[in-house]
Amino acid sequence: MDGKLGFLGPRGTFSEEAALLYCRSYQRSLVEFSTIGEVIEAVASKELSEGIVPLENSLEGSVGITLDLLVSLDGIAIRHELVFPISHCLLARPGEQLERVHTVYSHPQALGQCRGFLRRRLAGAACLSVESTAAAAKLAAINEGSAAIAPCRAGAIYSLEPLAEKIEDSSNNATRFIVLAEEDHLPTGSDKTSMVLACPDGPGSLYTILGYFAHLGINLTRIESRPSRRNLGDYLFFIDCQGHRLDPVLLQLHSKLRSRLNFIKLLGSYPRA
Amino acid sequence: MDGKLGFLGPRGTFSEEAALLYCRSYQRSLVEFSTIGEVIEAVASKELSEGIVPLENSLEGSVGITLDLLVSLDGIAIRHELVFPISHCLLARPGEQLERVHTVYSHPQALGQCRGFLRRRLAGAACLSVESTAAAAKLAAINEGSAAIAPCRAGAIYSLEPLAEKIEDSSNNATRFIVLAEEDHLPTGSDKTSMVLACPDGPGSLYTILGYFAHLGINLTRIESRPSRRNLGDYLFFIDCQGHRLDPVLLQLHSKLRSRLNFIKLLGSYPRA
Repeated sequence: MDGKLGFLGPRGTFSEEAALLYCRSYQRSLVEFSTIGEVIEAVASKELSEGIVPLENSLEGSVGITLDLLVSLDGIAIRHELVFPISHCLLARPGEQLERVHTVYSHPQALGQCRGFLRRRLAGAACLSVESTAAAAKLAAINEGSAAIAPCRAGAIYSLEPLAEKIEDSSNNATRFIVLAEEDHLPTGSDKTSMVLACPDGPGSLYTILGYFAHLGINLTRIESRPSRRNLGDYLFFIDCQGHRLDPVLLQLHSKLRSRLNFIKLLGSYPRA
Repeated sequence: MDGKLGFLGPRGTFSEEAALLYCRSYQRSLVEFSTIGEVIEAVASKELSEGIVPLENSLEGSVGITLDLLVSLDGIAIRHELVFPISHCLLARPGEQLERVHTVYSHPQALGQCRGFLRRRLAGAACLSVESTAAAAKLAAINEGSAAIAPCRAGAIYSLEPLAEKIEDSSNNATRFIVLAEEDHLPTGSDKTSMVLACPDGPGSLYTILGYFAHLGINLTRIESRPSRRNLGDYLFFIDCQGHRLDPVLLQLHSKLRSRLNFIKLLGSYPRA
C-alpha cells in the first residue's frame, strides 16, 4: 500500500529521521504535523493511512500523549516498531569555531544528554532550551557565535556544519517509534504484541495477571503502569510481549484475560524491531 | 532543617508551583536551575540540601532523565512525593479578547492537553510550540493578538490576565514530583518505598520477582520497565510499593531480592502523598 505517513515536525528532528528510515522500506509521502496528538488523530479519522510517533524515551516530548490516545481512540493499531539510535551533533554556521561559541541551543533533554561534553568543551557557554532540536538549528543558523545540539541531518537542512559529532554522554541512547495504521501487521514468525489492561488495586493482583503470561511461557518485553485518567488510584498497565495475537498461546491468553479483567485492549501485533 | 530547594525553572511553570507548595510545609529558599539533571546533581554533590523534580507525566520534559540519574548517582534518596494537579489557563495581555486571538503559544504537551478547547473556541488560531509554559507567557506578554496556555500563576508573574480557566480536556491530569535529599524520610505509618532492580530476560522472571511482593502481602503502586542503558536487551524495573524500607516485611523482601538479583537499589521511603 502506498499512502501518506504523518510525522511530528518540524523537519530536522529525530522524528523526521525515523520517518525517512521507515520510507526506505515502504514508499510513503510524508505529511508534517505539529503535535503527536494530531498525527494519531489523523490516522484514527482515516485522513492518513499511517502515522509514526515516538513511544519510549523520546527527545521531542513525553510519550504520555501517545499512550493515552492508544487507549482512548478506536480504529488505530500498531503496525510496526522502529528502535532508533539517538546521536547528537554540535552544529554551527560554516566557519564558526568551537572556542568562539558562547551560546548553545537545544531541546532541554538533548542538553541533558550532552552535559559531559558541554562541561568539558564549552564550560563558559550559555545553554538555552528551545522547543525542538530543529528550532535550535534555526537559531544557530542566524546567530553568530552560537551552536545547536541536533541530529546531523539538521545541518544539511539549515546550512550548518558539525563542530563535533556523537557528543552524547551515553552511546546506548535510543528512542522507540511506532507506526500506527487502521490495522496491525500479519504474523511474520518474529512478532510482538502490545496491549493495555486495567488491573484492580491490591497486593498480588498484577502478580496474578502476570501468572497467565508465565504459565503459557509468554515473555514480557515491556511493562509500564500509568494512573488511569478516569479513576484516580486505579492503574492501567501497558504490556508488550513476544508473539502475534493470532498465535494459539496468545489467543488463549487473551481469552483468559478478557474473562477476568474489566478492561483489556489489544493495541496490535507487529514484527519485532 | 532549613535549607535550599532546587527546582526546574523558569518561574511560572508547574515545577515552580510544586516547589512553592512544598515550601508551605517546609521553609526553604528556592534555587532555580535550567535542567532536571542540574537539580539532581546539585543534591548529589551537596550543593543543595534538597531538589524537587517531576517524576511522572510531567509537562516540562520527560522523566527519563530523573529515572536514569536515580539509578546512576549515589548520595541521593527520595524524601517526599507530591502529586500535583495540572490545570491550564489561557492568558493574554490586559484588554485582549478571546475572539481577537490569532496565535496561541505553549509547551507542546500543554497544547495537546487543551486540544478540545482550542478546536471549539480558537479554531482559526495558529498554535506555536515553545519550550515551556513560562516561555509561552513571556511571548504572550509582548505580542498583540496572542495568548499563552500556562498555569494561572504565570499570569501574575508576566502581567497577563486569564481569558479562560481550566481549559484542559481531562480534569484528572496530575504530575507527580519527588523531593530528593541526601537521606530519605523516617517511618510515619503511611509510607511508600521506591526501588529499581535489574530483571533477567526470559518468560516468568518478572513474575517470580513480583511473587516475593505478593507472598509478603506488599502492594505495588507503580511499575515501569526501562531498557538498561548498559546492556541492550536487559531491563530495569522501577517499582513503588506500600510501606517503609524499615518495616519488617520490607526488610524481609529486600534481603530476598538482594540474594536473587544482580542489581537492586533502594531509592528511598517517604510519606504517601
